[in-house]
This record gives sequence, structure tokens and C-alpha cells, in this order.
Amino acid sequence: MAALRIGIAGLGTVGGGVVKILQEKSALLSARCGKELKIIAASARKKRDIKGAEWLDDPLALAARSDIDIVVELIGGAEGVANDLVTNSLKNGKSVVTANKALIAKHGLRLATLAEQHNAQLLFEAAVAGGIPIIGALKRNLAGNRFSKISGILNGTCNFILTAMESRELDFQTALKKAQELGYAEADPSFDVGGVDAAHKLAILTSLAFDCPPALDHIYIEGIEKILPSDIHYAHELGYRIRLLGVTEMVDGKISQRVHPALVPDDSPLARVTDVTNAVLVNCDALGPLFIQGAGAGGGATASSVIADLAHLALGTKGATFNIPAAQLKPGNFMAISGHTGAYYLRMAVKDTPGVLAEITHDLSEEKIGVDAVLQPSAKNGKMAEIILITHPTDEASMQRAGEKISDLSALAEPLHLIRVER
Amino acid sequence: MAALRIGIAGLGTVGGGVVKILQEKSALLSARCGKELKIIAASARKKRDIKGAEWLDDPLALAARSDIDIVVELIGGAEGVANDLVTNSLKNGKSVVTANKALIAKHGLRLATLAEQHNAQLLFEAAVAGGIPIIGALKRNLAGNRFSKISGILNGTCNFILTAMESRELDFQTALKKAQELGYAEADPSFDVGGVDAAHKLAILTSLAFDCPPALDHIYIEGIEKILPSDIHYAHELGYRIRLLGVTEMVDGKISQRVHPALVPDDSPLARVTDVTNAVLVNCDALGPLFIQGAGAGGGATASSVIADLAHLALGTKGATFNIPAAQLKPGNFMAISGHTGAYYLRMAVKDTPGVLAEITHDLSEEKIGVDAVLQPSAKNGKMAEIILITHPTDEASMQRAGEKISDLSALAEPLHLIRVER
Repeated sequence: MAALRIGIAGLGTVGGGVVKILQEKSALLSARCGKELKIIAASARKKRDIKGAEWLDDPLALAARSDIDIVVELIGGAEGVANDLVTNSLKNGKSVVTANKALIAKHGLRLATLAEQHNAQLLFEAAVAGGIPIIGALKRNLAGNRFSKISGILNGTCNFILTAMESRELDFQTALKKAQELGYAEADPSFDVGGVDAAHKLAILTSLAFDCPPALDHIYIEGIEKILPSDIHYAHELGYRIRLLGVTEMVDGKISQRVHPALVPDDSPLARVTDVTNAVLVNCDALGPLFIQGAGAGGGATASSVIADLAHLALGTKGATFNIPAAQLKPGNFMAISGHTGAYYLRMAVKDTPGVLAEITHDLSEEKIGVDAVLQPSAKNGKMAEIILITHPTDEASMQRAGEKISDLSALAEPLHLIRVER
Repeated sequence: MAALRIGIAGLGTVGGGVVKILQEKSALLSARCGKELKIIAASARKKRDIKGAEWLDDPLALAARSDIDIVVELIGGAEGVANDLVTNSLKNGKSVVTANKALIAKHGLRLATLAEQHNAQLLFEAAVAGGIPIIGALKRNLAGNRFSKISGILNGTCNFILTAMESRELDFQTALKKAQELGYAEADPSFDVGGVDAAHKLAILTSLAFDCPPALDHIYIEGIEKILPSDIHYAHELGYRIRLLGVTEMVDGKISQRVHPALVPDDSPLARVTDVTNAVLVNCDALGPLFIQGAGAGGGATASSVIADLAHLALGTKGATFNIPAAQLKPGNFMAISGHTGAYYLRMAVKDTPGVLAEITHDLSEEKIGVDAVLQPSAKNGKMAEIILITHPTDEASMQRAGEKISDLSALAEPLHLIRVER
């Protein structure tokens, strides 16, 4: 039985998980893959003893080894060593398995071209939604389908925070602190809560779904920092949950790519996804909607996806990096957020309500925006009144114009708060 | 560019869907698969014109053609022509793609052995849960995991009936009639509502998860015919939905395989699956739970899975039929239903309630069965009282003994009705 000879760089949570599975399930993997999956050499910042593997102080040395077929890159970061290691490995005809979403989102086209030139595979199941096999689904299991839309809960930190705000009635800062205590959020959480991490993943999904190179610069990004407990409460009253969604969809020949908090109807499977769990909903033309939910982070889950890529390599699966050959990818025709069409949730704190509601609905109707639902809880003693409103679908430009007019109303006590509704 | 040369037998809903995708998405599939997916010849009961393909009156002729690489078998049935076609094709070294669950469940080991002897692939993504890529997940995307349990909503007909009973308050017969009108149930529905169809699928999942040949004879099967609207109502009151589940799990080294209606907690993703949709929940050791939901039947969805198999063949994926080589499969060590442990829902119509509840709980406590919840709606004028009870987990044998004692109570007006609870 031939062996798949692996070099691994990076032995953090994910790398450690990969080594553990390769060692503990060696016989099972050989039976399933028809080949031994063998670690030949390893490298990481801190030296570790890996049975049967040679230790290399310089991870870049993995790219040059003639006794290695596959390089597993788990260092992270779009530039520097990770980039060099992947680039050099592909140039040397070695296939690469990586969990590095930033690298693929930023350098995907160049690396895919390199891989295909050198007859190597570049696989990154672990880069999107942790253990959920969404890359494999888009590249292989759904090969008979065109895709119209993908909506995902792609960032576990944000989903934990939003659902902690929901179930435990915490404010954003308290929920964030809780996430940090549990190790679900970094000391500097901005990358996660600001939506950038989800955007990296979304860029990759867009490429696979719509045959274009990843285009991080064409994603509208809005984080969850401004969501109040009252938004979550009011959304719930109106039959919705608030989730940070990554959405990519084809609308009138243009690709709309966006990451933002969204009201999701209670009966959507996305509304049921809680804690750090991730989920992806793919609209397929032949199959219809496919929904997948699972662990989006953690050593075991992400390692499971790395192993899936190794298994595919062992089983002989070939295929273009982004579903179709890199040379056939065409730059996407992207829609700016101003072209978005959808319903909106509006929260307004007002000083004096009766006349104000008329003024607000007037401003909306001037932009031809219909009202789907209104909620105005009776104001507590001495407190501002709040008006909550969900519109019928409208275009973002009209909504922004109406929003500016509403913001100019003298009765408005705080800035208007808008959240998109995703049905 | 080389072509994958396909012969297809059977052009019903699924076969028609496969031909449609192969013809309409020819260029896309070539780009994704690196090969043209080309229909060389076709055969079905009723002659049809398929562009570019030769018509064969005898489907078995496909197995002998030297210009065909892959035979797609969509005739159906465990014996007869379908069996002969698959057997002969594999003997001739042709790979086979099939949607035929009965064939794989009944003859899986023999066919897998044949495929591996002749260096051919036998693929059946479409045989289980329609468009949901669960076979591919178990064979490839989850390769790094051991599985402890798979629970699935594997029969769309039953799920439609149960959820129609739930949402529209219909009785079983009326819901079944509705399903028949909509084309979701056959004129003779017994194969679906009796649980046999789900059992075929479950046998295949068990084989993939637990490295044994499919063993249809070792599945406990119970259909949904006895579920009353009141069961659905009471279950809902107690925080559950009723679904027909196929469950396979490893318990103390034994495999428990069963198809039966079950109370599923409201917060389980399975509880949210409505209409003809299918879903599968897989407990994985590295990844944790993975949940997949999608269309379980229909031409497009099932064709999507057939195309997935063709794509894998075009991409060069090899692999054992049932995850590990057929020669390494070991007959499963199966647990009889009497060895099952779980909670139970009991519905009892009684003539006289105060003393009866004491008698019932006495009978349960004699078998050391604890009570988790009791519901006794006040009896309407002249109607029987009903007592609903959910037990703590207990073993099936104790439950059956207690059930017999309860059934002997003179106050019991109708036979005791038991439904298993699946948490």
C-alpha cells in the first residue's frame, strides 16, 4: 500500500487536532483511503515530538522535500511564511491543504493558477465554516447544480454573542466578555465582530458558486457592534432572530456579496442556529435548498475538514481549485450595497410619538416604501418612546434617502438604527 | 479533453432529471469535472429520443458495450433487470451509479465485492435521502471521524403526513390521502408509511458508519399508521414533535438499528424538518454533530445526487463501496429492540382516573421506571379521560413488561400506546 506523505506546518489547536487524528486513526484512515496517511516532517514555532516525523525548524523546508507529497499549511496569515510555503510547495508540484481563509481570499487566483500549472491540488475545506463540508459540497457533491444564493452563519464568535444576547438578555459588551472568557473571542475581537473574518469566508464561497476569483474588496461589511438587546427583543416580537449573515447571491446578473447583521424569520433554519455553531444554506437549481449545520471552529472540527481534504487526495480526486479552471474564472460583476433590494428593520427613539409616526411613514411613502409591520411599545415613565418598523422590500438607495429624512426629524432623539431583513 | 462515457437505464422522474442536467449543463459540467459527461446509450421501457445517444431496447446490453465507462441504473427493484444490469456491468469492469436503495441494502456486500474485484466503483449517493449528500459525507468529507449515531428523517412521505397532521390537525388517513393527491405517496403506501423504505436507507447508512455489510434483517421497523392527532398534540404540549426516524447507533459495542416514530425535542434540528424534506444528523467524534437538511425526493434532487456520483468518477475519486474494502467488512453485532434504552411516551385512555394513575405509576415503579412528565387533560363530558406520561430512560424489556401490566388494568379502555422518545 502506497502512502500519502505529509509535511505539516503549524501545530496550534487545528494542527494538533490533525496530528491526533492521523495518529489515533491511522488504521481506519488507511482502510478508508486505500493509503496510509503518514506525517513525514513537521514544523512549528515551538518544537514538539511527533512520532515517526522529522522536525524542521524552517517550515519552508517542507516545500523542497522530495519525500513529501502534500504540505498541510496551518500557520495562518495572508502574507509571510504561510504564503511563501504554499507558493513554493505548489511551484514544486506538491498539493497543499490549508485552513488559511485570509490567504485563499486574498491570493486565491494566483495560487489556483500556480496549482493548476504545476498539476497540484490546492484544497481548503477547513477555511470556511470549520467542520462543515461546504467546500466539498460546492465543488463535488452539488456539481449538477447552479447556485442562486448562499447564506451562511460563518462566524461562531458573532453567533455566540448574538444568541447570548438573545437567550440571556445580555448587552453586546457583556456577551463579548463572556465569549472572551470562554475562549470564543480574541482579546482584540474586531476581526470577528466587525465581520471581516466572515467576509474572508464569503469571498471563497462566492468564487466557488459564481466562477469568479475571490474578491474581498467587493464585499459590503457591517459588524454586530451596534446591535442592542432591544433590537433582539423587538425582532423576536415580530417573528425574527438577528444573526450575522454572509450572503452571496446572483441578482439580475450581478453578484451581491455582503456581511451584515440581519433579521432572519423564525422559521428559517438559520434562526435556529445558536452558540458558536455555523451553518450554510445553499439555494441550488436542481436540488432546491440545502442546509448544513455544524461546528464552525475548534481543533477537532477544523481538523476534520483538513483530514477530509487529505482523504480526497488519497482517494485520487482531482479538480480545479475554485470549481472551474483558474484560467476560466472571470472577474465578478459585483453589485454595490446601494443596489441591494430587501426589507428593513428600523428602530427609532422619539420624543413625542403621535405626530412622529405620521411623519416617519410620510418620509417612507415619499420613497415608495411600504410598511409591513409596526411595533410601538408604550413608553415607560419618563423614557423615550420607541417606534419599530419593518418595511416591505425596497431598494437600499431609497431606504437610505428615507433614512436621512427620518434622521432630520426634530422628534428623533437618537440616530435611526437600520438592520436588513433577510428572507 | 477525454469524455466520461455514460450508459443510462431507466428514464422515469429521476432518469429524466439526470438527462436534463447532463444536456443543459454540459459545458458547466465539463468545466467542473475536467471531462465531458456524455450519454452514449440509453434504455427504458418507453422509447425516447435522447440527442446524441443510441437507443437500446435491452438495458442489459449497456453492460456489454465497450464504448461505455459508466452505467447509470435507475430502473429500481432489488432483483430482476436492475440487479442483472449492475452485476454484469461491474463484472465487465464498468463503474455503476445507482439510486436503487433496495438493491444496495439487499445485495450490497456481493456487489461491493464484485466492484472491488473488477476495479470498478459502485456509487449510490441518490439511494439515501434524495439530494442530501450524506453518502459522500460519510465516505469522504467526514473521513477523519468515527461515528457514534446517525438519526435521519429518511422518508418524505411519512414526514409530510406527520407534519400535515401537526400543522393542519388532520388524522392519519386524511393526511395520507392529501399526500397521495400531491403525488407524495403511492396508491399502495405501505412501503413508505410502514417504514420499509426508510429501513433500506438506514441499512446503507449503518454499513458506511459501522463497517459492516448492510443488514436489512436486523432493523426493528415500526410505521406511523397508529399515530393519532392527539399524540401529536400531546407531544407538542410536552415540548416534542413526532417524526419517523431511522436511527443507527453504537451502544456498548452493539449496533442498534431501528425505524420508528419518535418524539423529538422541539430544540432538535430534526423537529424543524417539515413536509417532504429529509434530514440527517450525524454524531462525529472529531467534528461533533453535523446536520444536513434538503429535498429527499423528486426528479431534480435525486438527479443532483446521481450527477454528484458522476462528477466524482470524472474527477478520479476511487474508494471502497462501503467506506472500507468489502473484504474488511465484518457482520455487525446487532442489538435487538429489546435491548434498546430510552425514554417512552405512553398514552392511555382510562375510565376512571384518580386510582388509575396510582396503579399505572405503581406498575412502572415495579419495573424501576421513573416518570419524567405527566399530562392529564380534564376529561370532556362523557369522554374517556386520557393520561399521557413520559418516562425517564429505561430499557425496552422493562418497558414492555410494565406495558403488559398496565394493559391488564381494568380501567384501561383502549390498548396502551407507546412511542419512543429520541433525545
